[in-house]
Amino acid sequence: MSRDIARAFAPASVGNVGVGFDILGHSLAGLGDRATVRRIAAPEVRITALRGVVTDLPLAAEKNTAGAALIALREGLGLDFGFALELDKGIALGSGLGGSAASCVAALVAANALLDAPLAPAALYPFALTGEAVASGGRHGDNVGPMLIGGLALTTAERLVAVPVPADWTCVVVHPHFVLETREARAALAGSYALHEFVAQSASLAQLLLGCERGDAGLVRDGLRDTLVEPRRARLIPGFDAVKQAALDAGALGASISGAGPSVFAWFEHRDAAEAAGRAMAAAFAGAGLGSDVLVSAVAGPAAQVIA
Amino acid sequence: MSRDIARAFAPASVGNVGVGFDILGHSLAGLGDRATVRRIAAPEVRITALRGVVTDLPLAAEKNTAGAALIALREGLGLDFGFALELDKGIALGSGLGGSAASCVAALVAANALLDAPLAPAALYPFALTGEAVASGGRHGDNVGPMLIGGLALTTAERLVAVPVPADWTCVVVHPHFVLETREARAALAGSYALHEFVAQSASLAQLLLGCERGDAGLVRDGLRDTLVEPRRARLIPGFDAVKQAALDAGALGASISGAGPSVFAWFEHRDAAEAAGRAMAAAFAGAGLGSDVLVSAVAGPAAQVIA
Repeated sequence: MSRDIARAFAPASVGNVGVGFDILGHSLAGLGDRATVRRIAAPEVRITALRGVVTDLPLAAEKNTAGAALIALREGLGLDFGFALELDKGIALGSGLGGSAASCVAALVAANALLDAPLAPAALYPFALTGEAVASGGRHGDNVGPMLIGGLALTTAERLVAVPVPADWTCVVVHPHFVLETREARAALAGSYALHEFVAQSASLAQLLLGCERGDAGLVRDGLRDTLVEPRRARLIPGFDAVKQAALDAGALGASISGAGPSVFAWFEHRDAAEAAGRAMAAAFAGAGLGSDVLVSAVAGPAAQVIA
Repeated sequence: MSRDIARAFAPASVGNVGVGFDILGHSLAGLGDRATVRRIAAPEVRITALRGVVTDLPLAAEKNTAGAALIALREGLGLDFGFALELDKGIALGSGLGGSAASCVAALVAANALLDAPLAPAALYPFALTGEAVASGGRHGDNVGPMLIGGLALTTAERLVAVPVPADWTCVVVHPHFVLETREARAALAGSYALHEFVAQSASLAQLLLGCERGDAGLVRDGLRDTLVEPRRARLIPGFDAVKQAALDAGALGASISGAGPSVFAWFEHRDAAEAAGRAMAAAFAGAGLGSDVLVSAVAGPAAQVIA
């Protein structure tokens, strides 16, 4: 017999990973959202509570990423029952750490556990894309994808592909205490692009992907250089240049903006260097008048999971 | 003691491979250019003969891709001797099969054999980029790169990276009998691009690369779809849509324009399907009033080499 209530945790994530705009992301240990889902007889999705670091989200299910994802799950699977959902937000909105995506994925993973025949996590991807579209206006999988399967993931419109990375590789993310609206961050990308910009960014993406697949830090070091998106968004983040330089000075394989920002991430071959870099990056934000939080995680972060 | 004369062969190639504009290419068995190089006392590079399917190329060394590459080699290594070069062209110019690149690479590989301390083939890459720039106006390695090391290669401004593909995977290239000037093909790409076009093409490139690296035909099938360059160039090639469709109908993993065109290539998992497709693609070109040649080769084609 299936359960009536389940709770799940979904981790934060680094979207874009600089050179993989909308198609590459990885999960992060140590921060995330929780969802508690009850199976209800009424054929609908209700959000019954919203707690934690964000409380001013829409409670109408269809306007909430988590609610919209559960509606898509119900409709996609033709379920004759509904869900009641409570969210505990651990990730600040407008941080660039996938806050809306984490609620969406946590809700799906919890609801999935209540199905008579639960799906594999990757099979939840299309529903997560539908939920995420409520927040971002597009079917971008670079946050929901890695949250569902863990680690680094290539996330296209059709496919969710795990990309292996060495277990030692470590990400540091520094989250400055101000909100950058995703809308504003997207507006900075308006306008047209030259073909040579695409060629340069494609070359970087290709090197990053092969470098991860092969565990070749040199390829990643050459690839993790965003010349397309970062230059257009950096001015939205006070102190960005100094924070990035602090990461590179500490030996980063590369550093850029996490998701739509304002968080800044950097990759390292080893955890100790990442920890030292985090302190230097926070100091650089302080120099720009901003307090910040530092998170250190394996690049191969965890997947969302059902919790007790 | 070093030799005084050496001859080398460089194969044709498929540049761009559709979704890897300027940064991805692979070599082809069965067609190529030969260079015969003599070491001479005079500190200069002379082109003394030009034979074969093309004879109206510049003989001034600095205006010829092969000549410019040998000048770059001399200057880069600080050689106190010179080279006299004869070229036997097997690849038609304006075919999209890397004709200028093959002369450049054949000349470098032959000259390298005359050095007191020959370099590894990949170390010739910067000199080949300099030579190729004479023809294409930019340092594009997608033809010279795979010719130097064989097979499929990622070719950035700084790096030449071999990408493995399964030995069975086969490419068919159909070369219609008309010349498409690289200049005209480049002009079709002028103008600006939207970010979403780049995201789609990046997703395709990423899937193609991971598919090759993993030998996963399904990933390649999803990835080998050029939505950025091909739509802008297809109208320059009479019959293109029908030729591509003939390849797809024959089971191709994907099909697109080879280099700047007008040749059309398609990839298959097995050689027999590629051979059947070649006949159908040639028939489609015939339907557009064009005769054509068909070439079938492993995707993992040969590298340039010194010959007797």
